[in-house]
Amino acid sequence: EYPHTWLPILSWLPRYKLKWLQMDLLAGATVGLTAVPQVLAYAEVAGLPLEYGLYSAFMGGFIYTLLGTSKDVTLGPTAIMSLLCFSVVGGQPHRAVLLSLLCGIIQALMALLRLGFLLDFISSPVIKGFTCAAAITIGFGQIKNILGLKDLPPQFFLEVYYTFKKIPEARIGDVILGLICLSLLVMLMLMKKTLDSEAVHSNSTFSRKLVWVVATMRNALVVIAASLVAFSWEAFGHDVFTITGKTVQGLPPFRPPPTWDNTTNGTIVPFGEIVEGFGDGLAVIPLMGLLESIAIAKAFGYQNDYRIDVNQELLAIGVTNIMGSFVSGYPVTGSFGRTAVNSQTGVCTPAGGIVTSESTFNVSLYCWDSLFICSLVISTEVDILPFVVTFLMSFWQVQYGIIGGVAVSGALLLYSTARPKITVSDYGSLVMQFSSGLSFPATAYLSHMVHSNALRASPPRSLVLDCCHISTIDYSVISEFRDMIRQFKRHNVVLIFSNLQPSVLEILLKADLEDMKYTEDVEEALQQLESGNVLDD
Amino acid sequence: EYPHTWLPILSWLPRYKLKWLQMDLLAGATVGLTAVPQVLAYAEVAGLPLEYGLYSAFMGGFIYTLLGTSKDVTLGPTAIMSLLCFSVVGGQPHRAVLLSLLCGIIQALMALLRLGFLLDFISSPVIKGFTCAAAITIGFGQIKNILGLKDLPPQFFLEVYYTFKKIPEARIGDVILGLICLSLLVMLMLMKKTLDSEAVHSNSTFSRKLVWVVATMRNALVVIAASLVAFSWEAFGHDVFTITGKTVQGLPPFRPPPTWDNTTNGTIVPFGEIVEGFGDGLAVIPLMGLLESIAIAKAFGYQNDYRIDVNQELLAIGVTNIMGSFVSGYPVTGSFGRTAVNSQTGVCTPAGGIVTSESTFNVSLYCWDSLFICSLVISTEVDILPFVVTFLMSFWQVQYGIIGGVAVSGALLLYSTARPKITVSDYGSLVMQFSSGLSFPATAYLSHMVHSNALRASPPRSLVLDCCHISTIDYSVISEFRDMIRQFKRHNVVLIFSNLQPSVLEILLKADLEDMKYTEDVEEALQQLESGNVLDD
Repeated sequence: EYPHTWLPILSWLPRYKLKWLQMDLLAGATVGLTAVPQVLAYAEVAGLPLEYGLYSAFMGGFIYTLLGTSKDVTLGPTAIMSLLCFSVVGGQPHRAVLLSLLCGIIQALMALLRLGFLLDFISSPVIKGFTCAAAITIGFGQIKNILGLKDLPPQFFLEVYYTFKKIPEARIGDVILGLICLSLLVMLMLMKKTLDSEAVHSNSTFSRKLVWVVATMRNALVVIAASLVAFSWEAFGHDVFTITGKTVQGLPPFRPPPTWDNTTNGTIVPFGEIVEGFGDGLAVIPLMGLLESIAIAKAFGYQNDYRIDVNQELLAIGVTNIMGSFVSGYPVTGSFGRTAVNSQTGVCTPAGGIVTSESTFNVSLYCWDSLFICSLVISTEVDILPFVVTFLMSFWQVQYGIIGGVAVSGALLLYSTARPKITVSDYGSLVMQFSSGLSFPATAYLSHMVHSNALRASPPRSLVLDCCHISTIDYSVISEFRDMIRQFKRHNVVLIFSNLQPSVLEILLKADLEDMKYTEDVEEALQQLESGNVLDD
Repeated sequence: EYPHTWLPILSWLPRYKLKWLQMDLLAGATVGLTAVPQVLAYAEVAGLPLEYGLYSAFMGGFIYTLLGTSKDVTLGPTAIMSLLCFSVVGGQPHRAVLLSLLCGIIQALMALLRLGFLLDFISSPVIKGFTCAAAITIGFGQIKNILGLKDLPPQFFLEVYYTFKKIPEARIGDVILGLICLSLLVMLMLMKKTLDSEAVHSNSTFSRKLVWVVATMRNALVVIAASLVAFSWEAFGHDVFTITGKTVQGLPPFRPPPTWDNTTNGTIVPFGEIVEGFGDGLAVIPLMGLLESIAIAKAFGYQNDYRIDVNQELLAIGVTNIMGSFVSGYPVTGSFGRTAVNSQTGVCTPAGGIVTSESTFNVSLYCWDSLFICSLVISTEVDILPFVVTFLMSFWQVQYGIIGGVAVSGALLLYSTARPKITVSDYGSLVMQFSSGLSFPATAYLSHMVHSNALRASPPRSLVLDCCHISTIDYSVISEFRDMIRQFKRHNVVLIFSNLQPSVLEILLKADLEDMKYTEDVEEALQQLESGNVLDD
C-alpha cells in the first residue's frame, strides 16, 4: 500500500534518479503538446472562452506532483468535468471559477474527513451508463461545430432537434475542412492503435517511433494544419471558415475568485444566490472528479503495478481546484484523455467547426462497450435498472444521471436487505433458512414469513431458524425475535434458533430474550422437537 | 393472512351476528365520550381552533369500517399527527385542511402502488427516539397551559426558555385548578391500571365495572367537572380562570378544501406556494400516519390474534384524510390514545390552563422506557446512533427527527454493506471468508483486502475465497473478480473460489470469467494449491 502521508513527494523525491529526468521531461513535453488543443476543446464543451481551458490546465501539474499518489495521472480539464460544469453554470466564466473554488474546498474537506469511501456507492453500471450518455452528448455537440451551426439551445433533445432543423444553414467550408480533419484523426488513431498492440519497445526503429509520436500528437498537428489553412484563406480575404476569434494572450492574473456575478442587464448576483444555483452540482462534481481520477489511476496502476490512496487523491484534486480558481480555472480532475485511449474527444480549433478528433468515433466504441455490458447484465439479470436510469436521465441533465443512478442502485440495495431470500423446508418440523444477514428493513418480511408459514398454519407448527448466514443483527430484529418467541408460546409451539454465529449468539444472550431456545445445529433442533422435550420448561 | 380485497367489510358483514351489536354500540359510545375532550386537546396541540379536532374525528369511523383491516383501530386526530401538523403548517386552519387532502392523496396513491413496504425503513430506534421527543415536546407544551401562559414561540427551546421566564405571569386560579385536575387524572389512571392488571372479566361485579367505566372516561369527566367550576365562577363575575372561548356549533359544512390562503395582511397565497411550504411534511406525515396506525394494529393484533394488510390500512387512512378535508379536518391516523394506554395526552378545556391528563406523567413513562432501550442498545452496541439523532433532531423540528433518523440508519446499513466482515486465515495458503453477501459498495474494500493480504505480500500469495455466505452478487463485484483473477495471474499466484452457492456459481459461469478456478470446498482448494497442479493450465 501507498505510505500514508500528506506529502507523498517526500517518499519518492529522495529516491529520484537523474536518468529518470530525461524520460520525465520527454513525457511532459509530449503531454503538453497533446494537451493544448484538447483543453481548448474542453473549454468549448464547458461553454467558456477558450483561454479558460489553458488557465485550468495550469495548476494541476505543480500540485499533483506534491500531493498525488499516482505517477501517471495528469490533472486538468476533462470532457466529463467540462460537460458537468456547463450543465451547472451554463457557460458563465465567473461562476465556473467560483464553482472550482467551492468544489475544491468540498473535496479537501472530504479528504480531511476521509470520506473517499463515498465513491464506493457509485456502482459500475452507473459509471458505464453515465459515460455512454456523456460520450453521445459531447459527440453530438461536435456535429454542430462541424456544420458551423451557432446559437443552439443547450438541452440535449432540443439541440438534436435544432441541429437537424438547421442543417440547410451549414457552412460548406467548415463541413469540408471538418470532415478532412476528422478522417485524418481517425486514420492516425487507428495507426496508433496498431502500433500500440504491436508493443513499441526500446527495440523498435526510429521511424516507427516517429510515427508513434505523430500519431500521439495527432490532435495538435491537425489543429495546427487546419488553423494554417483557415488563416491563409482568411488572409486572402475569403470568408469560407468560421473563425472562433482570438484568445486572450499571456498568463492569467493570480487573484481571489469572484464572489459575485453580473447578469446581462448589469444587476449584481450575490454569492448566496450563485451557490444556490449550483445546487446538486456541488455534490456531483467533487465526486465525479474523484471518480474519473480513480478510474484512471486504477487502469494505470494495474499496468504499472501500484495502488493509490483515495483520500490523498481527493486532497490533491481539491487543492488543485482551490488554487486553480485563483488563476481563473474551472473544475478539473485526472485526465484519462491526455495519455490514454478512451476519453479523447473533440478539439475546437480557431477554424470554427473543425473540432473534434475521434469523439464521434469513440462514441460508437463506448456504446459498443455498453451494449456488451448490457448483454452481460441482462444475462445475469442484475443491475440493468441503474444502467438504464443513469443513461436516460443523463440526457435530461448530466448530473441527474449520476444522482438518479446512485439513488436507484442504493434503493435496490436497501430493497434487497428488506426482502432477504428465505428458504422454508419441511423436515417434520419447519426449517427456515436466511440466505443473508437480517437488519431492520427485513423485520416486517421476516414476521410475515414466520406467521404465514408457522403460526397461521392450522394447526400452528414449530419452527427451526437456521441462522448460519446471519453475521449481524440489530435492535429491530432482536425486538422482532422477542415478539416471535412470545407468539410461539401463545400458540403452544416452539421456536428454536440454530447454527448461530458466536457474535450473534452473544448479542442475543445479552439482550436476554425470555424463553429463547437455541441449538448447535439444525439436526439437534429437529431431534429435540421430535422427542418433544422442548415444551417441558 | 387477511384476504386481499379493497373492501374488507364484505368479508365480515355477511358473518355479522346480532349479539355483537350490543358490544359494538357500548364500545362505540365509550370511545366517543373519551374522544371528545381528547380531540379538543389535540386540536390545541395542532394550534388550530378547537372545533377542528371534532371535525377531524368525524370521518374516520365511517370510512375505516368500510376499508380497514383491524377491528380495534379508530381513526382520528392523534398527539403525534397534531404535533407534526403544527410543525408543518404552524396552526393555519386553511392550510391544515389542504395538508389533509394532499396527505390523503399521497397515501391513497402509495396504497395503489403498494408502497407500504417503505415503512420497513423506519427502524425501531428511530420510532422510539421520535416518540420520546414528541412526548417531551407535547408534555412540556401542557405546562404553559397549566400556568395559563400565552403567546409563547412555537420552537421547543424558545418555548422552554420563555415558559420559565414568564412563570411570574402565571394565573394562580389556572394553576390550582390545573393541578387538582392533573392529580385526579393520575389517580384515576393508576386505578384503571390496577383494575386492568387484575383482568376485569364478565365475572366481575357491577361496582367494579362502574369504577372501570369512570376510570376509562376520566378525561371527559374531569373536563366536564372543571368546565362547570370555571363556568360557575365566571357566571358570578369572578375572572379567575382563562376561558378558551366558544367553539363553533353544529356540523362542519361539506365542501371542497380551500386551494389558497390569505396572509394576515390580506394577500392571497396561491396553491403552489402553500404546497412548497409543506415541504418534507408531505413525505413525513403520510408515513408517520401509517406507522402509528400499524403500531397500534400490531399491538392489538397480538392480543386478539389477527394480522393486518399494510397497503389496505394505507388506503383506509388515505381515503379518510381525503374525505376529512371536505369537512375541514386535518390529517388523522389510527389513535392508540383512544382506547389504549401510552399515547394519551393533554386536553384543553374551556377552563383554559386545565388541560392535560396524564401526559406529563406519561412522559416519564416514555422516557423510562427509552432509557431501558438505551441500556439494551448500548449493551449490544447497535443502533444507538439513529436513536440519539432522531431524539435530538426532533426538538429542532419534529419531522426532521424522523428524516434524520431514517437517513442515519439507512447510511449505517449501506456502510455495513460497504465494509463486510472479512476474515483472513492462514492454512499454508491464505483463506478469506466473507461473513455476508458482496454487493457493489464492497468492491473497493474487497480489492483492498485482497491486495494488501495476498498480492502485495512479498512474495505474493495464493488465495482461497470462502464464499459460503455469499448469496447474491452484482455486476460490479463480477468486474472486480475478473480484475482480481487477471492480477493473480500476473503475479503468478492462484485465486480459487470455493463453497459457492449454486445461484452464485451460475451467475459467475454466465459472466464467463476467464481462467476462473473453483472448488467444492476450502479443503479441496488447499489440497490443489499444495499439490501445485493448479498452475498447469
